[in-house]
Amino acid sequence: MKLIDLGEFGLIARLREAIEESRNPELESWQRLLIGTGDDCAAWRGDPRVQIATTDTLVQGVHFLEGTFTWEELGHKSMAANLSDIAAMGGAALYALVSFSLRADTDVADVLSLFRGMIEEGTRYGVAIEGGNLTTAPILVITIALLGNAGNGMLLRSAARPGDSVAVTGYLGASGAAVAVFKQELDVDHTTKELLRQSHFRPTPRIAEGQEMVRLGVKAAVDISDGLISDLTRICEASQVGARIDAALVPINPALHESVGAKSLEYALAGGEDFELLFTAPAVVVQRVRAALGIPVTVIGEIVAEHPGKVIVRGSTGGIPGTTGWDHFQK
Amino acid sequence: MKLIDLGEFGLIARLREAIEESRNPELESWQRLLIGTGDDCAAWRGDPRVQIATTDTLVQGVHFLEGTFTWEELGHKSMAANLSDIAAMGGAALYALVSFSLRADTDVADVLSLFRGMIEEGTRYGVAIEGGNLTTAPILVITIALLGNAGNGMLLRSAARPGDSVAVTGYLGASGAAVAVFKQELDVDHTTKELLRQSHFRPTPRIAEGQEMVRLGVKAAVDISDGLISDLTRICEASQVGARIDAALVPINPALHESVGAKSLEYALAGGEDFELLFTAPAVVVQRVRAALGIPVTVIGEIVAEHPGKVIVRGSTGGIPGTTGWDHFQK
Repeated sequence: MKLIDLGEFGLIARLREAIEESRNPELESWQRLLIGTGDDCAAWRGDPRVQIATTDTLVQGVHFLEGTFTWEELGHKSMAANLSDIAAMGGAALYALVSFSLRADTDVADVLSLFRGMIEEGTRYGVAIEGGNLTTAPILVITIALLGNAGNGMLLRSAARPGDSVAVTGYLGASGAAVAVFKQELDVDHTTKELLRQSHFRPTPRIAEGQEMVRLGVKAAVDISDGLISDLTRICEASQVGARIDAALVPINPALHESVGAKSLEYALAGGEDFELLFTAPAVVVQRVRAALGIPVTVIGEIVAEHPGKVIVRGSTGGIPGTTGWDHFQK
Repeated sequence: MKLIDLGEFGLIARLREAIEESRNPELESWQRLLIGTGDDCAAWRGDPRVQIATTDTLVQGVHFLEGTFTWEELGHKSMAANLSDIAAMGGAALYALVSFSLRADTDVADVLSLFRGMIEEGTRYGVAIEGGNLTTAPILVITIALLGNAGNGMLLRSAARPGDSVAVTGYLGASGAAVAVFKQELDVDHTTKELLRQSHFRPTPRIAEGQEMVRLGVKAAVDISDGLISDLTRICEASQVGARIDAALVPINPALHESVGAKSLEYALAGGEDFELLFTAPAVVVQRVRAALGIPVTVIGEIVAEHPGKVIVRGSTGGIPGTTGWDHFQK
């Protein structure tokens, strides 16, 4: 059935059912919720802890290309991108407001798949969808606002200090390489393509890892959404420090490296949307983090007092394309 | 200058400046804010009061037609639509997350005008813009998520009781009639057209009035966003009651009535986007509200136990077009 046949209010009713089915009384978010969908606002019991909020938008043709994803994957991705911002603060996520702009000829089944992907991804990290908005539009646009708290401290872009090690969780490059494959700028075998696609649409937001970093004394972090160099530059600008990293130390996704060789470094440095955490801390703190987390933690360089706001990459030929990160306005 | 020349990050810097210029240390929202734009999340001091949140999206071609507005008006409208949802809960607004999807050939000056309209409208009601998101897109899409609190009680759609009077603030019909004028379905003189346009793009969210209603004992309200009958139907459905209203009592915008006569009733009943408050309460409470508010408050009917979920309009010929309200999927 198409949306144009069911109508907006019919779809809203279906979406509400999906939210109700996902209700989990064990989650703090559900316990605190007073009013979900069905009134002018959502309402929940307040909380004296520090509150945090973020929002992110995915636009058809800009952030995802038709024919490259399942609707459920798109749901996962849109929620994961927001969760990653919460992770980068070391916080916990509680509530999502979800806005869909949909073409009237969209299949209702597709919208429900999208929504289920979103709910599944959110529920895994404690998020209750508490409301949203639905409109028609000539293209698909998804905006999520995600609310949470940072009760035990926050990871800030402005807290990097000279002498800190620069470290990163997991592996980089796969998501950016997937985009290059979608755009037919990069050719890989079918198995690698599917692995890259999975990395792109099903990233793992590092919520527990961010909270653990706060507990272990890390002060500065960002999630890698625009690209390693671009996001490290943000830390440098906000902290008024410089950074030096060693290209040879950057943890490139192994399957990507095996498939495309040296070219993989480019995606690891500038690809974006890997949603790993990039953090800085004294070496001893990074050691503690590495010992505590069940995922790879790699030191790739250090924070310096010199060249504030700038990142220098050792071992690169200096011509890394796109090292200003993902820029929507770049040709 | 076009966005494509300035780039996304250049625009973000300009928008941040505009936010900083609007910083008002006398507002509770600014006092509580710990981190605004510039990190992965906004952060503010938590609050044990009941928290509320809403979100609303405006899409070019669906919610506004090119050539009918100034960018500043669009900014006001987008913020006012969200504020109205906070008003309909009887709450206070604190923080906005603002997401723009913009064409790369958009004039930077226009975006800044849009943003200034948004800030001006928000500041008037205590809102600090604490973050947001910016992307390119083939069409203009604006999504705002608005956060606040409802510390002293809430106005709910589900709280109408048989015997309540049904009342409305202000005058109705002008905003819906403006849309008809834009679509060239309605012809009015130049002065009236400008009045209708103002009603459509510069509605007054009833924030103080909603809070006063809570204080005076009102329990049930909704804002008129989809149309009087449509929004009253929502109260009836949520409260499992019926409603009877008298068409002759509906407070039609005087300029609209003078200009188009009997046809104006149609816009008042079904036009939508007047953003007045529709509320139900015992007659004595409505009297108190009318005495306390500095704006017209008109009783238009009553809540009944019969025909739950349905609104009956007395004195209409029964053929009011569009009485299911504004439906984005309706041709």
